[in-house]
Amino acid sequence: MAAMKKIIECVPNFSEGRNPENIEKIVAPFRGQKGVKLLDFQTDEDHNRMVVTVVGEPQALKAAVIEAMGCAIDLIDMRTHKGQHPRMGATDVVPFIPIKNIDMQAAVAFSKEVAKEVAQKHSLPIFLYEKSASRPERQNLANIRKGQFEGLGDKIEQPEWKPDFGPPKIHPSAGVTAIGARMPLVAYNVNLESSDIEIANEIAKKVRHISGGLRYCKGIGIELKDRGLVQVSMNMTDYTKTALYQAFELIKIEARRYGVNVIGSEIVGLVPMPALMDTAAYYLGLEDFSMEQVLEARIWE
Amino acid sequence: MAAMKKIIECVPNFSEGRNPENIEKIVAPFRGQKGVKLLDFQTDEDHNRMVVTVVGEPQALKAAVIEAMGCAIDLIDMRTHKGQHPRMGATDVVPFIPIKNIDMQAAVAFSKEVAKEVAQKHSLPIFLYEKSASRPERQNLANIRKGQFEGLGDKIEQPEWKPDFGPPKIHPSAGVTAIGARMPLVAYNVNLESSDIEIANEIAKKVRHISGGLRYCKGIGIELKDRGLVQVSMNMTDYTKTALYQAFELIKIEARRYGVNVIGSEIVGLVPMPALMDTAAYYLGLEDFSMEQVLEARIWE
Repeated sequence: MAAMKKIIECVPNFSEGRNPENIEKIVAPFRGQKGVKLLDFQTDEDHNRMVVTVVGEPQALKAAVIEAMGCAIDLIDMRTHKGQHPRMGATDVVPFIPIKNIDMQAAVAFSKEVAKEVAQKHSLPIFLYEKSASRPERQNLANIRKGQFEGLGDKIEQPEWKPDFGPPKIHPSAGVTAIGARMPLVAYNVNLESSDIEIANEIAKKVRHISGGLRYCKGIGIELKDRGLVQVSMNMTDYTKTALYQAFELIKIEARRYGVNVIGSEIVGLVPMPALMDTAAYYLGLEDFSMEQVLEARIWE
Repeated sequence: MAAMKKIIECVPNFSEGRNPENIEKIVAPFRGQKGVKLLDFQTDEDHNRMVVTVVGEPQALKAAVIEAMGCAIDLIDMRTHKGQHPRMGATDVVPFIPIKNIDMQAAVAFSKEVAKEVAQKHSLPIFLYEKSASRPERQNLANIRKGQFEGLGDKIEQPEWKPDFGPPKIHPSAGVTAIGARMPLVAYNVNLESSDIEIANEIAKKVRHISGGLRYCKGIGIELKDRGLVQVSMNMTDYTKTALYQAFELIKIEARRYGVNVIGSEIVGLVPMPALMDTAAYYLGLEDFSMEQVLEARIWE
């Protein structure tokens, strides 16, 4: 019960989702390390990709991430890699998410520290992305990754695509990696009592940022065929600015237009505690509520 | 980040709220102990009483509580104690609250272990209360404490008031102590846009258990004179069975009868995370939500 430990989450994506021995070797540096906790890892054979979720104290987490990236470089050859998901490196992308006793600015500084060290140690070109990006066009991962491994060799030689750290050419077998700090994503879906995908799509357009909706919300319509329902499937990209209840209430308002009921919602995967605390505080009209009043937050601060 | 630590909360009440040196000596056993964390202590001069809030792993917590009770016995003489709050011992009451990786049954067993040890060590009569009570009439602390320190000397000699542990007579200077396990209390108040205390009282009657309302809810009307408002002030005695949103929604329903708006609510002091998670899940209509999805809960499990 030490006081004020800094905690960062990391969700590295590796371009290996098929070979169990390699998967285990890449995950191993996150196991049984003091100050690091492996929460989850999911592999996808079609994507030939693995997503690891790990939390830890900054220095211990940095050491584990750099070690795992070394394993990925040793074990993955992008020249023979095939998979459906867009990818550009053995370690494709390494987002760091500030969780506790650390703000975004410090998480950005930390991500740059990791980027610098890993670039040096493994002669790997690194692009900083999201909140750590050195230029606006590098904020969005899709922009960096455009062309994928096969196209990055030429792209990286253009002056405007010079990597932020490491050599200005791709690693022959491991490609390039994007590293950066971002807010936690919350995967949040709202279910509609309708089987009409068009209605879900129209509502998604009204709630998502790109087509006029909430600033930190991405969304599409999805069919849940086994339930005979449709869903507005969202990524909430900054719950501290766009709250879950805002998306939920806006969808209810839009659904009225179609005479459709909202029958529930779901959170997929992990959600930071304050995202739901904020929702409870909104609906109860809580005055002067502070996260310091949450018993568990006090115990493990 | 060790796995599956058991965490118990303890909120001992000591009959000392005036002498700063004695207060510090009684609190000292909870400071800087491995496996124990002092969250708060509040003293009240009028009540001449102190409420300590501490969490810890069972064995470390037990040692600290027994040590603090020893200090209270050494420093407090109930024969000369005066204060407005009903009291019967130097350590008046010691509730244990299961917080994490421990259920109520185990918390009850733990409270009995502490009661037995402290009774032996300090020759102190102990009544088990709440969930640990050996008889129904001992569940309610007010029943045990009736007569207070001055009356307990005779009361304790009656066969039906024989203590559960320790000698069948009060400690000459330290009186008797009640020890038991209970659910966490949540102090939850709902504010009404009215200055009429009668309306708050009438609504409180409808929502509280004793007069026909919710099973795990106590409540009274209170005037907030500085704001010109009235409030339904509640203790939620088991949020796992009577949810905060139930009280809030019932109060809104009752308030309509008087044409009065509910303008907000407040949580006083600490609240367990699941109490608010449950509220968020209710209002969002969350399907299949599990506390395992809360990032912070996974980090510190």
